[in-house]
Amino acid sequence: MTGGPDVVSAIVASARAAIAAAKGSARDVVAAGCAAPGPLDHETGVVHEAPNIPGLRDFPLAERLREALAIDAVYVDRDTAMAAVAEAVTGAARGVADFVYVTISTGLGGAIVSGGRMLRGVTNTAGEIGHWPVGLEGPRCGCGSYGCAESFAAGRNLAEAYGVPDAAQVYAAAAARDATAEWLVTRAERALANLAIGLVNVLNPSLIVVGGSIAEHEPARTLDAMRRGIAERAFAVPRDAVSVVPAGLGRDVGMLGAAIAARERASGRGEWFL
Amino acid sequence: MTGGPDVVSAIVASARAAIAAAKGSARDVVAAGCAAPGPLDHETGVVHEAPNIPGLRDFPLAERLREALAIDAVYVDRDTAMAAVAEAVTGAARGVADFVYVTISTGLGGAIVSGGRMLRGVTNTAGEIGHWPVGLEGPRCGCGSYGCAESFAAGRNLAEAYGVPDAAQVYAAAAARDATAEWLVTRAERALANLAIGLVNVLNPSLIVVGGSIAEHEPARTLDAMRRGIAERAFAVPRDAVSVVPAGLGRDVGMLGAAIAARERASGRGEWFL
Repeated sequence: MTGGPDVVSAIVASARAAIAAAKGSARDVVAAGCAAPGPLDHETGVVHEAPNIPGLRDFPLAERLREALAIDAVYVDRDTAMAAVAEAVTGAARGVADFVYVTISTGLGGAIVSGGRMLRGVTNTAGEIGHWPVGLEGPRCGCGSYGCAESFAAGRNLAEAYGVPDAAQVYAAAAARDATAEWLVTRAERALANLAIGLVNVLNPSLIVVGGSIAEHEPARTLDAMRRGIAERAFAVPRDAVSVVPAGLGRDVGMLGAAIAARERASGRGEWFL
Repeated sequence: MTGGPDVVSAIVASARAAIAAAKGSARDVVAAGCAAPGPLDHETGVVHEAPNIPGLRDFPLAERLREALAIDAVYVDRDTAMAAVAEAVTGAARGVADFVYVTISTGLGGAIVSGGRMLRGVTNTAGEIGHWPVGLEGPRCGCGSYGCAESFAAGRNLAEAYGVPDAAQVYAAAAARDATAEWLVTRAERALANLAIGLVNVLNPSLIVVGGSIAEHEPARTLDAMRRGIAERAFAVPRDAVSVVPAGLGRDVGMLGAAIAARERASGRGEWFL
């Protein structure tokens, strides 16, 4: 897919199929939620940049979906923010007021909940934790910078650096003691450790919830690397207060979060948490 | 100074002198504020660790000062949190709901205000931005870790790396084209750029207020390095929303913040912001 219209067409087709499968019509739908890559503005529904989808820039996704689906209330939010909502309401972070959601997948992203509120920032783009630079040097990142946690540790970046289509092949090669793969995976572990230490020292959460396909398949080289980094290098008090746990929900976490967020925002309860 | 009792004695002597100079007595003092190095817990007044003061560990500073001064209400908070309060109430961040205060001095620290609230975390130690690792390798830091922004860019660390008592000498040597000094200062600039980019991408503030003696004396190699890093490498929307500005208050910012924080907390208004 390239560009906004393709994305809208695909979502509309999928939404219409879901409505048909439920034997309903668009008029039965009170609100719809849509998880999208960030940075974006969940209040205006505009996606600013999507490093992993070429051509999607400053695109009014919520508005276009409202028009195309003829549904009045379409709520867009960053996929990772939606995932954090789902984990908070029904997953690994139930009842937790200070946590960070991290996804290690094609990209590396997350969302920050502090004192029971989603940390949004002044233009609603806060939480892009994959783009905190954790190395003074490092490979070029999809965001245009370099040294980002994502540039070292995300699936797409690992696969590209090794020259294969899928990061699973890099982990497999590392397990088979290929030196280059092992070097890349070890470097990714160190980047994830830096990220985890930074989250603990700077945000002092009680929980870091780690999801995404890479984390799910390679916990020993992702979650464990983060735990070791925290144990060895974070300040003692926030170190002792934090746990790093796997996400409680599977790959549909963003979709589940979108449904919960749409319900909350449609009922006017959104701002307490979202 | 080493250890808590020395610190308490020095503060008590200074407080008694100030009370005497005002021709008052401890009974006239409704509340006192004390800015201390972190991590600490501003609610209990316990200083957990102070990397730059040997021997100060898990020390109940507020309680000891209450006893020694016979003042009922003594409020302790991290020096950088106090400084952020002062900058927010009467300095460079007046009326700003999303900002980060950064001090580049002996150490490197800060405080985060998001959505009009001080970001505290689950054990009140959030905001230790000097200890977000920004390099995969790097010199050992006073906190026990390595690669922290502080380990590259704080005054004590620069001076130690160059083998002189004062960071000013490192900057002077760099200006005189000494290769080692230039390498150290350039590396510090890169660490500060990483820190600034991370703050922008992760927290999306409208303002980064930079104080501390190094920032004050070397703005071209601190604030400008942060501005350049943000301009070249941060996401466009949060980049365009942020300004990096010098602190509005001078070296007494922590003391001023302590007075304001004590007044606010004594009046019960503390939690809205502090």
